[in-house]
Amino acid sequence: MTNPVSISDPASRPSDNMLWGGRFTGGLDPLMVSYNESIYFDRKFHTQDILGSIAWARANLRIHIIDEAEFTAIENGLIQVENEWLSNTFKIIPGIDEDIHTANERRLGEIIGKDIAGKLHTGRSRNEQIATDMRMWLRGELRKIRELLKNFLQTMVSRAEHEIDHIMPGYTHLQRAQPIRWSHWILSYAMAISEDLERLEQMITRVNKCPLGAGALAGNCFGINRKLIADELGFDDLVWNSMGAVSSRDFAIELMQWGSMFMSHISRMSEDIIIYSSSEYGFVKLSDAYSTGSSLMPHKKNPDSLELLRGKSGRAFGQMAGLMMTVKGIPSTYNKDLQESVEPMIEHIKLISDSIQIATGVLSTLKIDSKKMYESFDPFMVATDLADYLVLKGVPFREAHQISGKCVAYSEKNDVPMNRMYLSNFQDIDKRFDEDIFEIFDYHHSVEMHSVEGGTSKASVQNQIDKIQSLLQ
Amino acid sequence: MTNPVSISDPASRPSDNMLWGGRFTGGLDPLMVSYNESIYFDRKFHTQDILGSIAWARANLRIHIIDEAEFTAIENGLIQVENEWLSNTFKIIPGIDEDIHTANERRLGEIIGKDIAGKLHTGRSRNEQIATDMRMWLRGELRKIRELLKNFLQTMVSRAEHEIDHIMPGYTHLQRAQPIRWSHWILSYAMAISEDLERLEQMITRVNKCPLGAGALAGNCFGINRKLIADELGFDDLVWNSMGAVSSRDFAIELMQWGSMFMSHISRMSEDIIIYSSSEYGFVKLSDAYSTGSSLMPHKKNPDSLELLRGKSGRAFGQMAGLMMTVKGIPSTYNKDLQESVEPMIEHIKLISDSIQIATGVLSTLKIDSKKMYESFDPFMVATDLADYLVLKGVPFREAHQISGKCVAYSEKNDVPMNRMYLSNFQDIDKRFDEDIFEIFDYHHSVEMHSVEGGTSKASVQNQIDKIQSLLQ
Amino acid sequence: MTNPVSISDPASRPSDNMLWGGRFTGGLDPLMVSYNESIYFDRKFHTQDILGSIAWARANLRIHIIDEAEFTAIENGLIQVENEWLSNTFKIIPGIDEDIHTANERRLGEIIGKDIAGKLHTGRSRNEQIATDMRMWLRGELRKIRELLKNFLQTMVSRAEHEIDHIMPGYTHLQRAQPIRWSHWILSYAMAISEDLERLEQMITRVNKCPLGAGALAGNCFGINRKLIADELGFDDLVWNSMGAVSSRDFAIELMQWGSMFMSHISRMSEDIIIYSSSEYGFVKLSDAYSTGSSLMPHKKNPDSLELLRGKSGRAFGQMAGLMMTVKGIPSTYNKDLQESVEPMIEHIKLISDSIQIATGVLSTLKIDSKKMYESFDPFMVATDLADYLVLKGVPFREAHQISGKCVAYSEKNDVPMNRMYLSNFQDIDKRFDEDIFEIFDYHHSVEMHSVEGGTSKASVQNQIDKIQSLLQ
Amino acid sequence: MTNPVSISDPASRPSDNMLWGGRFTGGLDPLMVSYNESIYFDRKFHTQDILGSIAWARANLRIHIIDEAEFTAIENGLIQVENEWLSNTFKIIPGIDEDIHTANERRLGEIIGKDIAGKLHTGRSRNEQIATDMRMWLRGELRKIRELLKNFLQTMVSRAEHEIDHIMPGYTHLQRAQPIRWSHWILSYAMAISEDLERLEQMITRVNKCPLGAGALAGNCFGINRKLIADELGFDDLVWNSMGAVSSRDFAIELMQWGSMFMSHISRMSEDIIIYSSSEYGFVKLSDAYSTGSSLMPHKKNPDSLELLRGKSGRAFGQMAGLMMTVKGIPSTYNKDLQESVEPMIEHIKLISDSIQIATGVLSTLKIDSKKMYESFDPFMVATDLADYLVLKGVPFREAHQISGKCVAYSEKNDVPMNRMYLSNFQDIDKRFDEDIFEIFDYHHSVEMHSVEGGTSKASVQNQIDKIQSLLQ
Repeated sequence: MTNPVSISDPASRPSDNMLWGGRFTGGLDPLMVSYNESIYFDRKFHTQDILGSIAWARANLRIHIIDEAEFTAIENGLIQVENEWLSNTFKIIPGIDEDIHTANERRLGEIIGKDIAGKLHTGRSRNEQIATDMRMWLRGELRKIRELLKNFLQTMVSRAEHEIDHIMPGYTHLQRAQPIRWSHWILSYAMAISEDLERLEQMITRVNKCPLGAGALAGNCFGINRKLIADELGFDDLVWNSMGAVSSRDFAIELMQWGSMFMSHISRMSEDIIIYSSSEYGFVKLSDAYSTGSSLMPHKKNPDSLELLRGKSGRAFGQMAGLMMTVKGIPSTYNKDLQESVEPMIEHIKLISDSIQIATGVLSTLKIDSKKMYESFDPFMVATDLADYLVLKGVPFREAHQISGKCVAYSEKNDVPMNRMYLSNFQDIDKRFDEDIFEIFDYHHSVEMHSVEGGTSKASVQNQIDKIQSLLQ
Repeated sequence: MTNPVSISDPASRPSDNMLWGGRFTGGLDPLMVSYNESIYFDRKFHTQDILGSIAWARANLRIHIIDEAEFTAIENGLIQVENEWLSNTFKIIPGIDEDIHTANERRLGEIIGKDIAGKLHTGRSRNEQIATDMRMWLRGELRKIRELLKNFLQTMVSRAEHEIDHIMPGYTHLQRAQPIRWSHWILSYAMAISEDLERLEQMITRVNKCPLGAGALAGNCFGINRKLIADELGFDDLVWNSMGAVSSRDFAIELMQWGSMFMSHISRMSEDIIIYSSSEYGFVKLSDAYSTGSSLMPHKKNPDSLELLRGKSGRAFGQMAGLMMTVKGIPSTYNKDLQESVEPMIEHIKLISDSIQIATGVLSTLKIDSKKMYESFDPFMVATDLADYLVLKGVPFREAHQISGKCVAYSEKNDVPMNRMYLSNFQDIDKRFDEDIFEIFDYHHSVEMHSVEGGTSKASVQNQIDKIQSLLQ
Repeated sequence: MTNPVSISDPASRPSDNMLWGGRFTGGLDPLMVSYNESIYFDRKFHTQDILGSIAWARANLRIHIIDEAEFTAIENGLIQVENEWLSNTFKIIPGIDEDIHTANERRLGEIIGKDIAGKLHTGRSRNEQIATDMRMWLRGELRKIRELLKNFLQTMVSRAEHEIDHIMPGYTHLQRAQPIRWSHWILSYAMAISEDLERLEQMITRVNKCPLGAGALAGNCFGINRKLIADELGFDDLVWNSMGAVSSRDFAIELMQWGSMFMSHISRMSEDIIIYSSSEYGFVKLSDAYSTGSSLMPHKKNPDSLELLRGKSGRAFGQMAGLMMTVKGIPSTYNKDLQESVEPMIEHIKLISDSIQIATGVLSTLKIDSKKMYESFDPFMVATDLADYLVLKGVPFREAHQISGKCVAYSEKNDVPMNRMYLSNFQDIDKRFDEDIFEIFDYHHSVEMHSVEGGTSKASVQNQIDKIQSLLQ
Repeated sequence: MTNPVSISDPASRPSDNMLWGGRFTGGLDPLMVSYNESIYFDRKFHTQDILGSIAWARANLRIHIIDEAEFTAIENGLIQVENEWLSNTFKIIPGIDEDIHTANERRLGEIIGKDIAGKLHTGRSRNEQIATDMRMWLRGELRKIRELLKNFLQTMVSRAEHEIDHIMPGYTHLQRAQPIRWSHWILSYAMAISEDLERLEQMITRVNKCPLGAGALAGNCFGINRKLIADELGFDDLVWNSMGAVSSRDFAIELMQWGSMFMSHISRMSEDIIIYSSSEYGFVKLSDAYSTGSSLMPHKKNPDSLELLRGKSGRAFGQMAGLMMTVKGIPSTYNKDLQESVEPMIEHIKLISDSIQIATGVLSTLKIDSKKMYESFDPFMVATDLADYLVLKGVPFREAHQISGKCVAYSEKNDVPMNRMYLSNFQDIDKRFDEDIFEIFDYHHSVEMHSVEGGTSKASVQNQIDKIQSLLQ
């Protein structure tokens, strides 16, 4: 974090600058000013910056760096600055208000005079300020995201509970595999999201540590009480090494690693629904609110919301990849490279926050077509159940599997669906088949057979619902 | 590319939407509107969109889809729309003007009436429009970048030529290795940048292909003349498969692959200069225009510009990584995921364009301290020359290398710099040393010995300068 | 590139090493030996390394660093070493043969004696050797890949030509959009691959530049003739700055950028085919050679080949991303970080080479089910053609689009397929409909209407085939 | 997870395969066999696979799918198979032993007969097996890594404690900023590593969940007791949704996200030490065990170990980026794409494990040169202390900062080091300077002033050491 560019050095004179065909003619490169300034994105942290400054002033009051009157002036002045931000009347001075810290201090000086305002910065560095602002803002946003996630999970389990009786083909390799409950599919994502929630909670604790008091890198030298500052600002702990405090953007990287994994869940879920909503599948129909028509083809209904969710999973990943590249191999403590963490962090939070809500909206409004789901069943999907039937009659699994394969072959060869074969056909293949073999062609019976913990039977699915509900209390 | 969301479908009624605790209560999710709309970034393409529409209208005139009067109305109307954009008076209607195509057509209808305006879209899809706009805009930006790159190269070679006589330590593994010319260091980057320039030229040709006429995916069905459209719009060629035309964002990926490699050159160059400008090295001093002071430490001068360049190399990479993730594994033709290519492409161009100019500015204004460079020499840096001296006297290389090692050891053991050793000291080690051994401790002599093509002798360096100059004609 | 670790320095004595609880007790850390050595992957370059050494020796003969007899001994010795590699009898000495250069030189010394072998390394550095080996090996592999790519393209266009008469639904947003030719779909990928071919050719030229003569960083100092070396080794040009020659891994990055874009094409194509081969679509059936059954479900046929292609597109990207991260921000010239470019480059080439062949195999053996393709048509897919029909009768497009929408609505409301509606139904909606309206429900008629360049009519598709064929001559 | 390719289908006959110029002539593509097989890397999991199978057999015994005698045969047979792996006598049959599960079952059948061996697979899928093997193996490796990390931390704090009295320049922007303790620098990384340790612990809990019993996707249908299986295998919990159990590779992604962040810490630490060990700094000297000499330059000592650490941080990132790309947007449950997670996971673990040990070795053996550290101090580094001195005398900070700036300017202008200025010089600038001003030029005094929590004073540093020690109990 640095001061505005000075133009006093003769090295900046036009004549010098022109030696090798440089692109600008004045002492100051206006492009450098905009390349360097962060005010147009870090203004997002105005509240955090001002709360941090009030806490800082109060800490300096405690150690008599400033007196009561000065503190009161600073506090009132800062509140006024904050009100200007809130009422959208704060006027950024281009080229001067390089960042949010500079802007706030400049404005405070105008309000209460530079003499007192000038004391605010005593023993404090912008290196620690920006880290504090970012962490405070982020922990607040993460708490909001936690609520959005819980709401998303609530939607998923409510839907799973209401529609627990609908069954559909389950796929592996996008090939029909075994019958499952529709709710079981929903819960496969809900379980992933509930791990996201767990990771989120753990991350918040790591984010919510206070860097204030770290100075430029060596720590404060007036004996300020960091713990009281941290308490006032709602931090759970301190960042315990002053160099690390100004050096680390791990909290932003961890956010983006978290967010890109979350989006990978959303992206796979979107992929499933996009396929399920194609005409050939037809299992679900998106609400108009989350789909759109075509300008050229009047009959179309496109799943734009899901495609955007899937597409934005790429951008979330790119933000993370970019920041990891930015910090790779830079020396310790503050380097200006770190400024490149701010904008991606803000954008990442917005992307995640929006995406949870869109995903929630999509999932809470789509309609399922259980008839189409049912029509997509294929007797071959219970070929495994057929083998299992024999196993339960005492046939070794491998033999059972071969017999099942023969039934499949018979069905294909004679072009008769397996569930339309006669008992005699089965018995010609193996004597151990009995009248009750036809039960296995009841797909509802099939799902109920998978009654193990985590399975697709009704009780197993309800159990999963209960597990997630208990997280949401 | 899709139409605004309709609210007529009963599935969108509040009561339906609330089934599973969805987050919004109306038929329309306002967040979805903003999640979906692209107008706030694709407005950047207003000129391209309008030129494309004029060319489209002219092509439809040729095949009698519209008549002369209609064409004139459309052309004049579109020119007026463009003027509104240029004069910043175009009023985007939030929630309606979803994208630049919709906005322009809506406004055209207001100006010339919907009947005629409605004919403009005949046989055309937004899928092909956005691809056309992006490619047109991009080829224009790439041409500007080409000029900026040439200017950067010009700056590098001019500087290399003016300062060809300054020598400095060359490093491998950041350890002093051999003396080199300062200009040789500059040219090591200039050569990389000239390959960037070559790649850029080749890329422009691939970008500059016209998708118009591709329709939604199957091609135009009124027999439009795609080549005449392409000519009018300055394209070099057509995109030769209509599905690929609406499906591909390879041009944007190639841009970002190019840009992230370019930035990796800039990032390594920045790293070198940051190290060279630290007090311990002191080889160069940045202009005030590209460095800043500290708010807490009055003595500091920080190389912010270079740190930003290095940091932004991360963001450039992240944009590329993100887009590659976005397109990974999506089905062919247009999917809304592709909308996520637009904003990163625009941001990437700005990042690259700014960074070239900043790098040019830094390199054209920094001062070198040739005294500090010289002080950093160490007689051990010519240990290789010492071995080579013996090789030229007929000593086999391996033996020469061992003798050189003994001289190094003698110097270290007796704590006498190698260039302060007596001739007798050398001769005690090997009889073949002669009076002329002391020439090798002349570092200028050393660099001149490396006279091979691409080496660090004056002629070799000048030759490299000439090579790059010839590219810039 | 560095010498084996010496253990003579007292700092390496056990007692010193144990000061702070280090993990090893001897002077030498065996893990460091394996962490550092590259012989187990760079042995891949044995031929290149030996050819490079022969060329180097010949160049030193020319400038009288070695004499004829020495050259002959070196050349014969190196040929013997190469034969040992080829016959798999070369014995790597663990812990000594750190890399391919060291191994070859060690072995040469054993064969012809250290005195002469020791002269081979005169004025040469391992920094330039590894860059030379990598570039030589890579340009050879890229030429093989070029042939594989051409074969892939040939397969695509042959298939497209043979099956040009089959039509299928074209999708946007994975929703049925318009009828297309199956061959048109193939060619959408063939066009992307032919751009890959173009990029490949351009890349080969950049890869095929000779770094030999660059020395450790400053260039050779015996006046060696770099151009003759380059000619002997089949290089097209020199790397024209000695620092850049040892510093750059751009050729490996460009390879991986190229490869990851190529794999993104393969990944999207695989995605399409995976969806088309699901039971719900059923358009294609993979050959048994490229699909597999299930251990649990006897009826399944999984498209493993395509899933592996899609999955490996991730790994190809990861190799590229990893290398870009590795080189990010390191100082110029050789740093040991660059060793991390070797293994990924080798792995990348294998991945790409295998994947082209698998993709070719899949595409040349899959069967299409044109009946299933046809069954998937839906009269709504010609809603656009219906509007176009009216446009050709002089109805403005927007009005035509609305009328078409009314026909769609009538069809949906009355649950009668649009192609089963009576003429009177159409005329009730708009008088301008005539008997010939029913032609548009002929899907073959529809594709033929899209006769523009790059469109899906037979002639347009044939034209695309011809274009690609001309590239393959 | 799939069975070996069958060649019985006529579609695989040569004549069919040749239709469009495919690359192979037989029914079976040998390249596809190797492209598909995983045995050469998943053999790593032989122990886990066998333990899993024993637990599986025991669970089937409980529900009477097999009897006691069969169980005993299976268990003894599997133990024999494991012994073959351990004694390196297991013979993989190329082309048949596609993966570790197939290989183990094939071998078991040979030992105990196919009839009994065939029962082992009852109700079990390779989809759940591979997920189980991976998680079991990974949690074991992570526990080893936890110990390595603790040892690394122990080394860091031991060193920090022993060398707490050494001071050095602290840098921001690689410019000298303020004096710090050497130990403070060490601890800045130790604190980051201790957060890595915390994240690691949390991750192990998430990894250590049992997928067994999930079946192919729908769950086991014989009522197996998943909890007892999980207990026997040492899992903490179950994966609670059977589809998620076979679908998710989140545990591998989380590993790699964790590992790439850990490596980013190591990479920055390496960068610092590389710079500190360059001749111009000279603060530290690497042990010979972790550095190497040059083949061409006898005087060099290169920090190869640190460069490899820095370089491998790129590869670690690439592995993560690649896997995230691989899973992006694939449909739920098992797809063969997921096979691409196995090899990168194994490689990642090795990379991390090796790198921790190398970093520990480097840090435990490097020597510091406290004299060089001291010589690098510069009186300007206490310019902040000078301002703080005035603040403590009651001067407002901003004024103090300006006065300090004037002292800096005086020193520069008159070319006299600030600590050599006379008291009168100071007093000419400001009357409030007193005799005690010279105390601030004692750099030890300066570090002691930074006594806040997390600061660089002796007590503050000791406090940090104690904090980390308490984690290691």
